[in-house]
Amino acid sequence: MSSLEHRKDEAIEYFEQRFKIKIRKKEYFFEALTHSSFLNENRKWPYNHNERLEFLGDAVLQLSSSDFIFFAYPDFSEGVLTPLRANLVNSLMLSKIALSLSLDKYLFISKGEKMSVEQFLSQLNDKTVDESKLKCYVLADAVEALFGAIYLDQGFQVAKNVIVDILKHFVSEVIEKNNQKDYKSVLQEKMQELYKKAPNYQVVKSEGPAHQVFYTVSVSINDKEIGLGDGWSKKDAEEKAAQNALKEERWK
Amino acid sequence: MSSLEHRKDEAIEYFEQRFKIKIRKKEYFFEALTHSSFLNENRKWPYNHNERLEFLGDAVLQLSSSDFIFFAYPDFSEGVLTPLRANLVNSLMLSKIALSLSLDKYLFISKGEKMSVEQFLSQLNDKTVDESKLKCYVLADAVEALFGAIYLDQGFQVAKNVIVDILKHFVSEVIEKNNQKDYKSVLQEKMQELYKKAPNYQVVKSEGPAHQVFYTVSVSINDKEIGLGDGWSKKDAEEKAAQNALKEERWK
Repeated sequence: MSSLEHRKDEAIEYFEQRFKIKIRKKEYFFEALTHSSFLNENRKWPYNHNERLEFLGDAVLQLSSSDFIFFAYPDFSEGVLTPLRANLVNSLMLSKIALSLSLDKYLFISKGEKMSVEQFLSQLNDKTVDESKLKCYVLADAVEALFGAIYLDQGFQVAKNVIVDILKHFVSEVIEKNNQKDYKSVLQEKMQELYKKAPNYQVVKSEGPAHQVFYTVSVSINDKEIGLGDGWSKKDAEEKAAQNALKEERWK
Repeated sequence: MSSLEHRKDEAIEYFEQRFKIKIRKKEYFFEALTHSSFLNENRKWPYNHNERLEFLGDAVLQLSSSDFIFFAYPDFSEGVLTPLRANLVNSLMLSKIALSLSLDKYLFISKGEKMSVEQFLSQLNDKTVDESKLKCYVLADAVEALFGAIYLDQGFQVAKNVIVDILKHFVSEVIEKNNQKDYKSVLQEKMQELYKKAPNYQVVKSEGPAHQVFYTVSVSINDKEIGLGDGWSKKDAEEKAAQNALKEERWK
């Protein structure tokens, strides 16, 4: 049996044990493990590279992680849940997840790309390196593609359970590390970088009785309105305005 | 029966017919229909506003729309599917979807907010107005919250079917309108806006035999590398580099 056939069997066996599933359509998993660079060195390889599965798996991961923290943190507002989800599934976290799954051992990838992945992993283990500066999409993309394959082969419920089993080991670390930076400071930093000045917040409407006013706030840069938000306090309304500004990027 | 109780019954009846479902937990739907502004005028209202459900429903919509176009367009690469998904579920499209569901008639919302929604809808129907300039999150957020409620009450499969039944009426219009602008031109525009210059692409690696070279390209602005990409042609590698640059925004 050719060594590639052997590697394929090993991968299926490993994932069936690792995720406690019986794989129906092995092709999904071989595609998820195929990096585009591999097709160059293996013309007869019958599977596509994993980029379409990565597209699908990214959304499987989004819903699974959203469902997870929605129920795990019933007291977190949308304004806290959204950055938490972003930090939980960014490319660095996904690389760590890929590593925790030993995905690097099962990828079909060119020798050149394999070397850059190994270099990335050695830097990741080097505590003197600022990991936020590290960039490597191969593992992050592959882990998303793998989630896409599980979704196609086993359905959403199984995929969600697999993903939540993984994320629950990372979530508290993520909450600690980014003590939930608020939208206002994110927008402030962005505007400082782009325009060397802070955005300007103004109350444009306030409804309701004095003891409980409902505020609408406008945020602008260079006198151009870039976001609107409302809430029970000026602070909440400003947060919402900053969030909408970051969503729309109308300063461009 | 109070008029609010009457409106609640009407809403449940309407959504059960509209989506052909038997609603189990009505509370999910009342929460999805509750705009934060409504709580001000109705202190005894027993439901939260819809922002947490919006957070969840946004991800339900992401996976449902991804699954839909993944299977509907088997020949679309990830580089085409990603902007298509973004255009299919942006806030303007979601407002149109909310309108197609008559969601504006069932929202629990303050008089002030209701007026701005009605103004938005009249502009939306005014063909002389450039709709890409219109901004109104109330309806877009509510429709996402509604999808979140359907997901919680009926599970992912039912939510996906409901969403796909809606999206299939919009997708071809979306594909025509944005004839799939590529990542390179998006990055080019962004760099022109921010730095008044175009990004610079360079081949940093080329592997494989002359007749089929695998390229790695670096894209940089002001001599700072902001993205890497690879592919079978320089053009593909440049597209990937632009895509990664847009993903990471390392120019900041």
